[in-house]
Amino acid sequence: MIKINENRLLQDLSELGRIGATADGGVNRPALTLADIEARAWYQRAIAEAGLSYAIDGAGNQSAILYSDPPSPKRILAGSHLDSVPEGGRYDGALGVLAALEALRVMRENSLKPSITLEAVNFTDEEGAIMGLLGSRALCGQLSAEDFGRSKLEAAALNRRLSAVGISQETMLAARRDDALAWVELHIEQGGRLESSGIDIGVVDAIVGIRSLHVRLSGEAAHAGTKPMSQRRDALWGASQFILRARQWVMDRHSPGVCNVGMIDAKPGAFNIVPAQVDFALEFRHGSEAALDAMQADLVALLEECAAEFDLGVEYEATPPAHPAQMSESVMNAIESAADRLGLSHQRMLSFAGHDTQNMARIAAAAMYFVPSVNGVSHNPGECTSAADCVNGANLMLHTLLELLKTLD
Amino acid sequence: MIKINENRLLQDLSELGRIGATADGGVNRPALTLADIEARAWYQRAIAEAGLSYAIDGAGNQSAILYSDPPSPKRILAGSHLDSVPEGGRYDGALGVLAALEALRVMRENSLKPSITLEAVNFTDEEGAIMGLLGSRALCGQLSAEDFGRSKLEAAALNRRLSAVGISQETMLAARRDDALAWVELHIEQGGRLESSGIDIGVVDAIVGIRSLHVRLSGEAAHAGTKPMSQRRDALWGASQFILRARQWVMDRHSPGVCNVGMIDAKPGAFNIVPAQVDFALEFRHGSEAALDAMQADLVALLEECAAEFDLGVEYEATPPAHPAQMSESVMNAIESAADRLGLSHQRMLSFAGHDTQNMARIAAAAMYFVPSVNGVSHNPGECTSAADCVNGANLMLHTLLELLKTLD
Repeated sequence: MIKINENRLLQDLSELGRIGATADGGVNRPALTLADIEARAWYQRAIAEAGLSYAIDGAGNQSAILYSDPPSPKRILAGSHLDSVPEGGRYDGALGVLAALEALRVMRENSLKPSITLEAVNFTDEEGAIMGLLGSRALCGQLSAEDFGRSKLEAAALNRRLSAVGISQETMLAARRDDALAWVELHIEQGGRLESSGIDIGVVDAIVGIRSLHVRLSGEAAHAGTKPMSQRRDALWGASQFILRARQWVMDRHSPGVCNVGMIDAKPGAFNIVPAQVDFALEFRHGSEAALDAMQADLVALLEECAAEFDLGVEYEATPPAHPAQMSESVMNAIESAADRLGLSHQRMLSFAGHDTQNMARIAAAAMYFVPSVNGVSHNPGECTSAADCVNGANLMLHTLLELLKTLD
Repeated sequence: MIKINENRLLQDLSELGRIGATADGGVNRPALTLADIEARAWYQRAIAEAGLSYAIDGAGNQSAILYSDPPSPKRILAGSHLDSVPEGGRYDGALGVLAALEALRVMRENSLKPSITLEAVNFTDEEGAIMGLLGSRALCGQLSAEDFGRSKLEAAALNRRLSAVGISQETMLAARRDDALAWVELHIEQGGRLESSGIDIGVVDAIVGIRSLHVRLSGEAAHAGTKPMSQRRDALWGASQFILRARQWVMDRHSPGVCNVGMIDAKPGAFNIVPAQVDFALEFRHGSEAALDAMQADLVALLEECAAEFDLGVEYEATPPAHPAQMSESVMNAIESAADRLGLSHQRMLSFAGHDTQNMARIAAAAMYFVPSVNGVSHNPGECTSAADCVNGANLMLHTLLELLKTLD
């Protein structure tokens, strides 16, 4: 059975890990910083050395291309991203790009002419140095001029960064493609589910949607000595009650959905004043709009219950949601068939983090799969996936593409 | 029976309420601001107009003096403070100073020569624009040079403010007096206990001690999507559990003691990151060191229990405590005898706020009493005490001083 070149894959991972390397073994390679530009140059060189064709689109997405003969009108894309979060790890994104590159390399070395043109893609700014999932958003025609107003960079800095790789806001807005037939992405899990269950591969059946509410509970400021506790309208009591009950409700009623309160502030904010107002940030995730609707209904009812219990007012405001994305059954089947052929155990699971695949699912038959993360650590220099799991992931990429060529042809 | 001049008292309250008046009916008169300096000038003028003697000590404490003949070596002091919190009310402090002034005025008008020299005192900075209870601390010899390092004002600003009323750090440090025989203070309750029980007068038997802990709970930052809820070490879960259980424990086991969590912060502080660290401010109050010790033991045990429940680390650091002060039985008896004579109902109670009386209790037989606060509101422009209760409080001041002259002579 055809396999990827293990040593070459691990060598690539190691070389790439030196670009933007931090002292603690991680990488610091946010999109379009000098380190990311160096990684992009490295990728372009590796593509050329492999004898594959190279292309970059208006969004700065880089592709290795293995053409069918004759070139097909539609293409099968695979890949991930080479940028990292600030002070991130070496595997998040990089493994997926290198596995796709390696799969194409091995096919070319074995003179396997694909029946459909294949691309191994490095998407621009998956991690959000500018706005997150940027390259895939542009490729899918989901980027608008207004989106640049929400960039984390000032316009001048943004334009400088874009021009450093030969693109601009205008080219990004024109980067939409209509030739993607299918998309597959390998990514590290970034959680501990695979590791704890001893399963090799997580086949993602949906990428969760994310909803976020800014919540405000309003009581009454009072002297922390003279106001009897039984007469207080302490907004922090209501918030505490909500945080604990939301935890229990979500675990009991909405699993595998998750929620988080990550920010909290009590005003006026003094040792000796009963909090009149508490603002907190509530986020929750689940695999479908229906599941998210049910969670939101429960959480809002709980908010009102907790507010009433402590005689508080309650307001909340939703921030723009990330919609859940359902994966393509045919691509999942291709992944699972390939895994079976390779003797890799697999299970279906939700992806609780956002990925470029959620954009690709809008324009192509798309799916993704995970390999285990040691201790579930990610977005952290301590992020690690074993060499064996990296190799498994890349072999699965090769065989998934072969399977897709068979089934989609 | 001799009584105070009601109209004059209410007229004084009204005049003083115009100094530093805010649009919403309160006053903004923090210590040694222009408004406070104007109130001090008003007090000095009122003393002169009443034909009483005037004195100001090295701490800026102003006194109206009604001398005994011959002048006694020891004196009976009464009063409170004319400064306010920022955006405070018209009664907190002011009523106590004006009642003491009115009592001396009425005695002088009625040619009652006291057997012991009497003073009606306005203490400097009770509310803490500089450090709180400052004037009484200086008078009691409890002020040290190091204390100025903890001033809320920079040294230059502090010295400018002090010199505006003719004092300095040096004169404050030398302001200790040894001639106080007894002290009595009238204050508004700042809580709703008297109002809800329909009692005229609260005779304070102890001023609560206050202990404050900076608490830190430490868990682990994690991705709010990929980290399963059952595996999280969310520091905000532990803090919420503590806040709710502490509320219940204190109400159930430590009443009438009270506790408050008035500040809270979760780090790193993002919608999508599980809080790794929560810092919060815990304050608790009770009437004796023994009661405070018992509360602290329970609260610390609860902290450790909540930390263990969510696999968190816990640290805490105490800030300098305010010690509880027991009131003088003889002065309380004098207040109660006078109240009985005036037909005013009374009950003993704790003071949950700090007052200059807690300092005076170190050097003299001291006690204080409360009149009702409408809706228990204080440190707020909406603070109010009915005219009838103001008059009751001032008559009680007059008769308490007469009672003390009888019993202490």
